[in-house]
Amino acid sequence: MSLPGPLLRLIEELQHLPGIGPKGAQRLAFHILKTPREQTERLADAVRQVKEHVTYCSVCSNITDADPCTYCSSDTRDRTVICVVEEPQNVSAVERTREFKGIYHVLMGALSPLQGIGPDDLKIKSLLARVTNGVAEVILATNPNVEGEATAIYLARLLKPLGVKVTRIAMGVPVGSDLEYADEVTMHKALEGRREV
Amino acid sequence: MSLPGPLLRLIEELQHLPGIGPKGAQRLAFHILKTPREQTERLADAVRQVKEHVTYCSVCSNITDADPCTYCSSDTRDRTVICVVEEPQNVSAVERTREFKGIYHVLMGALSPLQGIGPDDLKIKSLLARVTNGVAEVILATNPNVEGEATAIYLARLLKPLGVKVTRIAMGVPVGSDLEYADEVTMHKALEGRREV
Repeated sequence: MSLPGPLLRLIEELQHLPGIGPKGAQRLAFHILKTPREQTERLADAVRQVKEHVTYCSVCSNITDADPCTYCSSDTRDRTVICVVEEPQNVSAVERTREFKGIYHVLMGALSPLQGIGPDDLKIKSLLARVTNGVAEVILATNPNVEGEATAIYLARLLKPLGVKVTRIAMGVPVGSDLEYADEVTMHKALEGRREV
Repeated sequence: MSLPGPLLRLIEELQHLPGIGPKGAQRLAFHILKTPREQTERLADAVRQVKEHVTYCSVCSNITDADPCTYCSSDTRDRTVICVVEEPQNVSAVERTREFKGIYHVLMGALSPLQGIGPDDLKIKSLLARVTNGVAEVILATNPNVEGEATAIYLARLLKPLGVKVTRIAMGVPVGSDLEYADEVTMHKALEGRREV
């Protein structure tokens, strides 16, 4: 079937989004076609606005609509503890615990030789520059996978000589799950990290 | 975490798309944030263009960027056979077979009392108006589910008195699948529709 040009273009553009294949893009495009114009206008506008008004914090690289971001400019957050994460969305994950009162540093990725991502592609220099006398602890909250782990080890090696306490978030069986479903690496980490009760 | 306003708005708008929940919308929004501006501009533009330039054919209700659509205005298609489908995307499914040389009629839905969709909400009147002396056969290619089946039965009742041949696409086990995975209703249809070899 020869679909109209504008529809083909929309399908093509939607396919660039993560997790959306040719079939999904077609389904979305046909849905957009059926949606009232005001709503699709709001979507198109939201896409534009987000690129226009959301930037990265010049201090911690977190996303923000004001620079520096709310965490970096807050005077109630503990500036002696920096939590290092890979992506801006990881900040949400830490914030949701309502436990952490320190500040953040977003690396904008993780070391991945396979994808050609080296130390210079990450916000590592700006992290080292932030770790001055005032900072007591750097928590490495990179992802619990190969890249995140390698990045954590790499950062630990750079940070320890600066005389700061460097910690890594605990890995183990997730709360609410069942041991039956834990893979052996997770189980190994859970045993290794056991604590006295 | 307090996400910037424009990002929250984009997440909100993305959630209106089918099959995209809060988590998926957040993932897409963060991806859009990371994407180069030219590309996101193309996406926003494609959404706008599709609403601006793609309309429905005044004859068959298929989507088109010219009215009447390519099928209705073609002089190589067989105008004596009308294939009735529920949605514009179903036309693609039939066209992909490269078997059908007739023309189409898109109902824009199927009868669904539960969703409050009655005969007047579908393009049924315009279908009946099209079935004149020149039309030899109407193929009912509505979906093989409860709503599609009910719609087909309803249409057959209206069309047969007009003296036209009314057919329904075959239901059975899909090609390339395994009988093991066929549900009992499909299997029943496959047996019922068996043909001599």
